[in-house]
Amino acid sequence: MRQVYLDYSATTPVKKEVLDAMLPYFTEVYGNPSSLYSISDASKEAIATARGQVAELIGATDKEIFFTSGGTEADNWALMGVTDALKNKGNHIITTKIEHHAILHTCEFLEKHGFEVTYLDVNAEGMVEPAALEAAIRDNTVLVSIMMINNEVGTLQPIRELAAIAKAHGVLFHTDAVQAAGNVEIDVKEMGIDLLSMSAHKIYGPKGIGALYVRRGVRISNYMHGGAQETRKRAGTENLPGIVGFGKAAEMAKANLQAHIDHCSSLRNYLVEQIMANLEDVHVNGSMEYRHPGNANMTFEYIEGEAMLLYLDMHGISVSTGSACSSKSLTPSHVLTALGIPVERIHGTLRMTVGDMTTKEDIDYTVEVLVKVVNKLREISSVSKEKGW
Amino acid sequence: MRQVYLDYSATTPVKKEVLDAMLPYFTEVYGNPSSLYSISDASKEAIATARGQVAELIGATDKEIFFTSGGTEADNWALMGVTDALKNKGNHIITTKIEHHAILHTCEFLEKHGFEVTYLDVNAEGMVEPAALEAAIRDNTVLVSIMMINNEVGTLQPIRELAAIAKAHGVLFHTDAVQAAGNVEIDVKEMGIDLLSMSAHKIYGPKGIGALYVRRGVRISNYMHGGAQETRKRAGTENLPGIVGFGKAAEMAKANLQAHIDHCSSLRNYLVEQIMANLEDVHVNGSMEYRHPGNANMTFEYIEGEAMLLYLDMHGISVSTGSACSSKSLTPSHVLTALGIPVERIHGTLRMTVGDMTTKEDIDYTVEVLVKVVNKLREISSVSKEKGW
Repeated sequence: MRQVYLDYSATTPVKKEVLDAMLPYFTEVYGNPSSLYSISDASKEAIATARGQVAELIGATDKEIFFTSGGTEADNWALMGVTDALKNKGNHIITTKIEHHAILHTCEFLEKHGFEVTYLDVNAEGMVEPAALEAAIRDNTVLVSIMMINNEVGTLQPIRELAAIAKAHGVLFHTDAVQAAGNVEIDVKEMGIDLLSMSAHKIYGPKGIGALYVRRGVRISNYMHGGAQETRKRAGTENLPGIVGFGKAAEMAKANLQAHIDHCSSLRNYLVEQIMANLEDVHVNGSMEYRHPGNANMTFEYIEGEAMLLYLDMHGISVSTGSACSSKSLTPSHVLTALGIPVERIHGTLRMTVGDMTTKEDIDYTVEVLVKVVNKLREISSVSKEKGW
Repeated sequence: MRQVYLDYSATTPVKKEVLDAMLPYFTEVYGNPSSLYSISDASKEAIATARGQVAELIGATDKEIFFTSGGTEADNWALMGVTDALKNKGNHIITTKIEHHAILHTCEFLEKHGFEVTYLDVNAEGMVEPAALEAAIRDNTVLVSIMMINNEVGTLQPIRELAAIAKAHGVLFHTDAVQAAGNVEIDVKEMGIDLLSMSAHKIYGPKGIGALYVRRGVRISNYMHGGAQETRKRAGTENLPGIVGFGKAAEMAKANLQAHIDHCSSLRNYLVEQIMANLEDVHVNGSMEYRHPGNANMTFEYIEGEAMLLYLDMHGISVSTGSACSSKSLTPSHVLTALGIPVERIHGTLRMTVGDMTTKEDIDYTVEVLVKVVNKLREISSVSKEKGW
């Protein structure tokens, strides 16, 4: 059976070049980068190279990149670290209703520890209104955290404008760019970003490694306490092969950015067009203009996304109903809810995300199976209704 | 030039069998373990297998093992999580003066946030006196954290006895077993341990992965907030290849434990004996009876450890002056200071740790070079003194 992976926003396979770059660092070049003897020089140099590669992907300087265990840790650190460092300045954070749980659950933890959080609404396309941010800023606001690209509906936020508003009020601006890095052009200096979270496994790098960009001059407390690694900002023996792999993946993402965007967006557009041409009562969620190049989040009315997912899976096609991190949950997506989509439509929603290995044949096969599945499920659903099941 | 690695306590190379086990999980079996489609089943199963392997190494049940990004995160989580969960019960922690910085710096952070910390003294061999722990426990004590094996001098603590004292007072007992797991027999149930930190890269597994054992029933707040991974206790996409590698390394460590102990302790003893037989004014620090099987921490009087390290490195031998995590620091080791070793002796101290790949020839070569180096450095030092340099 044909296998079609359409969940690149959940995770990506590691590219061969990335794995090849990592391999020597497991068994041959294994010296602890913090050690003083010369066999560790190669470890130190490999980390320095990777730091430069990651910095370049987002227009940062090397010294502003701190490696973490992933996007979740970067998000936790940004929020916990800034609020701790600035607790004498204020106790108010602004974020949005559509953030990843790594932000939302950290905010909930902070709310239990004396902080106040404003969760901004988004419009029907999932965009934050700059005026809403402006209105939410108070004297005691210390941090604004707004994701660059939403992981479910793929909406790209007007980050420049939002960051400028924060800056005008002397408030730090963090963005969760886990879905954005490697999928859109990012220049933290030009965009006015103070802190930015990244993850390697969303850009064909390994799982278990990410980074937090911290603009020089930003005050942030440590989150992981211990050894003197990462210029004393993030303790713990460096994940040497992971860092090397992240660096290589970032370098490739930077070099291939336009080709990647063109490849993904053309296949994604073809997928959406073919579905719309062959099925009625189908909607695309989010903005088609400001969007992740590979993301198709679509609602198929009258049926259950979970049933579609299982049917597609039986035919070798891997898609998602929401973010992987919450896909075990039965509550309707907080993102689609925030976009104002009615609960019955939310249940008929699939997220399909294409990536570098996706082919036109993959899309043709997916459309063929999907159309059959939707028609079949709608038939069952209408029979059920008629018979009063 | 011969290369001799004698810093296995800093980190270990990944064993071939471990890397082979990991490889498919980068490029082939890459499905996000939280996803619902069937290609992720293999990812879920691999994690379940690894969890069982890690649990078995320490006598825990699978559900009590939570994967982290390493020993440092496990230590941070244990301290931050228990103190947060029990903050209504009390605000006092007991630890020792010889803990790893992952514990000490987390304690310092907690001290800045309303907690009180007692740092227990150790005796000349680096042992915590059970009576000292008993005397330190107060009504508001919520956690005792005492490392199983010290990373610098290798002293093995009387964990059973210490844990029993904590238990008798209804206080939770955590142990940092980063140096102990795979080097001594551990049974958390029989030893009465409530929480235990581990790291893969000290047992021939990959860097960037570790685990916290949390006994069923122990109340602990989350440290990494976000997705529903690790039964909602530790968020972040699972480091799938890292977890698989940790599992394999734990399985091998369990199977090879006695052979590993015999191999390391005989080579370590031979190293110590040969050095003592060929040099005067040399001391072994710590206990020879209750000790890490591969650890030789030795003081060479009248000379500088750093100079020895560089000389040995020039001859291809990698050793350490202290823990890798603090080896960039110029302050004398807090561990050797706590053992009551005078500062001039501390500066003449080396840590040499042997491992599974160490051979008798490695030791013979090391002793040969070391004896020359020490004699030469002592000669320079005595000439300097005579000439009043």
